[in-house]
Amino acid sequence: MAEMFARRMGTVHRSFIREILKVTANPEIISFAGGLPNPELFPVAAMGKAAHEVFSNIGASALQYSTTEGDAGLRAIIARRYRENRGLVVDPDSILITTGSQQILDIVAKVFIDQGDKVVIERPGYLGAIQAFSLFEPEFVTVSLEPDGPNLDELEAAFRDGAKCFYSVPNFQNPSGVSYSLAKRKGVAELLDRYDVLFIEDDPYGELRFMGEDLPSIYSFCNKPGILCGSFSKIAAPGFRIGWLVAGQAAYDKLVIAKQAADLHTSTVAQAIMRRYLETNDIESHVALIRERYGYQRGVMVEMIRQYFPSCVTIIEPEGGMFLWATMPEGFSSMDLFDVAIKDKVAFVPGRPFYVDGTGENTMRLNFSNSDEARIEAGIKRLGKSIEAFLE
Amino acid sequence: MAEMFARRMGTVHRSFIREILKVTANPEIISFAGGLPNPELFPVAAMGKAAHEVFSNIGASALQYSTTEGDAGLRAIIARRYRENRGLVVDPDSILITTGSQQILDIVAKVFIDQGDKVVIERPGYLGAIQAFSLFEPEFVTVSLEPDGPNLDELEAAFRDGAKCFYSVPNFQNPSGVSYSLAKRKGVAELLDRYDVLFIEDDPYGELRFMGEDLPSIYSFCNKPGILCGSFSKIAAPGFRIGWLVAGQAAYDKLVIAKQAADLHTSTVAQAIMRRYLETNDIESHVALIRERYGYQRGVMVEMIRQYFPSCVTIIEPEGGMFLWATMPEGFSSMDLFDVAIKDKVAFVPGRPFYVDGTGENTMRLNFSNSDEARIEAGIKRLGKSIEAFLE
Repeated sequence: MAEMFARRMGTVHRSFIREILKVTANPEIISFAGGLPNPELFPVAAMGKAAHEVFSNIGASALQYSTTEGDAGLRAIIARRYRENRGLVVDPDSILITTGSQQILDIVAKVFIDQGDKVVIERPGYLGAIQAFSLFEPEFVTVSLEPDGPNLDELEAAFRDGAKCFYSVPNFQNPSGVSYSLAKRKGVAELLDRYDVLFIEDDPYGELRFMGEDLPSIYSFCNKPGILCGSFSKIAAPGFRIGWLVAGQAAYDKLVIAKQAADLHTSTVAQAIMRRYLETNDIESHVALIRERYGYQRGVMVEMIRQYFPSCVTIIEPEGGMFLWATMPEGFSSMDLFDVAIKDKVAFVPGRPFYVDGTGENTMRLNFSNSDEARIEAGIKRLGKSIEAFLE
Repeated sequence: MAEMFARRMGTVHRSFIREILKVTANPEIISFAGGLPNPELFPVAAMGKAAHEVFSNIGASALQYSTTEGDAGLRAIIARRYRENRGLVVDPDSILITTGSQQILDIVAKVFIDQGDKVVIERPGYLGAIQAFSLFEPEFVTVSLEPDGPNLDELEAAFRDGAKCFYSVPNFQNPSGVSYSLAKRKGVAELLDRYDVLFIEDDPYGELRFMGEDLPSIYSFCNKPGILCGSFSKIAAPGFRIGWLVAGQAAYDKLVIAKQAADLHTSTVAQAIMRRYLETNDIESHVALIRERYGYQRGVMVEMIRQYFPSCVTIIEPEGGMFLWATMPEGFSSMDLFDVAIKDKVAFVPGRPFYVDGTGENTMRLNFSNSDEARIEAGIKRLGKSIEAFLE
């Protein structure tokens, strides 16, 4: 069988995080490794009511095949929210509903990436994008992510060197928690105007800001059409697998073809329930609730880290999202620390898989969205001990 | 923008059927062009009840991220149905839940097809497979589909010539309605044993047999692991986008990687509702009802064709499924007929898009699952007149 696999499968492996999650299934382990939203905040009753209404009101049409572009009502709601919440004018006909925002990465890669094309990503970069893009065999070019966003000199050098596209997560990036400053956003947009590089702006966490000011999307500064990606996974629930992209006409037409070949269309049932939920509930209050809770959990984690981590471990304090990034002194391996920490019954994700260049050995990602105050306190205390023992 | 698209997009276009469906949206047109199940048969109330129970009983976990492999309970039900209904022993751990069976074609192509690989398909062939595979730039090799299945000499010649895989729809194929005979099934399996060719058996319609005897899957005769594809779209409802594949361990592991990169996992909500529906309803009686209704509709269409089509138009009378295949005399174009028929307010799918070699000009596909007796009678009468006028 092995000799039958396509060449592209040669360099792709199961997600490292996936393998970690198996180890952390033991309930005695306090895990900051996953990337799950807090299920206590899922609007279960409201979704149940929406589902009931969908089956009562529209019945069979919620169960039938539907258009590749996605439910028109749902796309109108997404466009309205962009306008009202972000001041961004988006034509509903430029919105394509996708099976989670992960699917966007797959179809964008399929439509744009030839083998060997230079794809610019942040360093560290989002693992789901690295996985999806890798199957189309690009050459990854990484740009340092500084606390206020990408290093613009490196970015321009990459653009000058013939980059095909730039994949960016400007708000509370996974894994680093970094958010681009206004100046960096404008700087990126200015570079995009000068070079023929496709811009892919992924924004699953943008509405989860706990502190600081909301900043405009880079997309809004660009004069050329890019691809803007969104998702209901972090503001409603991930189990629906509903994301969306916004694209210019030429790209949109090709992306529809790729989407149709990939799965015909996103679940009609899931779209209908989500639409009904959005029509009959105040999602803005719900998002405010998530922001408040995650902001609190983030605060507890930062506080506990100050208390229990040795001072040589530095962190990036995120202004939103779900992740916090920690860096040990040079020369220490978070992969090795992981083994120590698991014995102390606490888990995190070692940073190396987020670096396609094999660096990042001394970094780690900690998730704060899926643990309550008590577990964060106990877990960070354990991890602080593990780190101290490990560094000695 | 055009110069930014990947090379693979150069030869792929929007589905021709999709374009046809736009023309046929006019309610005055009786359309046999689509490929939709009859929505009157969707178990709306039972699905509504199942949805209610899912939100009441398991709540948040139906809304959370879930495993790439799919819901364990759902996979167990699929394995049980294979055992009880088909006598096929399948390990639930060899089943991967997919976002419709269309997704199987995408991930199988991704895992196995390198540019230029020889992919054997039936002539005429399933358009969704042609589209999904095309994006991975294979060389298609087509094998004549005879009324009892593929021409085995042509199939062996293709295998001998270094085919990478063979994609086959042995039951009531879309578009032709052809079902492989027992002898042809065994003949295909025997060839697969002798050559190193990956076998992909797609079976969305296998449970919709109206007449004749159920025949074993080719998969069940093979000594080497192939990939068996199934779907709930035709036996329950397509709007969930839930399909599944069965594969050997080595292929399974790679397919999970490709599935994860494609959309992480299939909608947790959709899977939970489908599982609950299957646990609390008698799907076998429901499938029997669909079989009875489609069998009746198929009978009406065959009868009306005998009455209203000129005798020089030959048809393949399907023993199941949703489609009937008609062939005009050589030299006539069903594309041209289409324009005549639309003026007479009746539609079908011209056969040419199902032939990657550009032949099949005189053929057409007629769907009988989505029209009742009165519309079938009126539509075939109209189409008979169009054909007569056209042939003169």
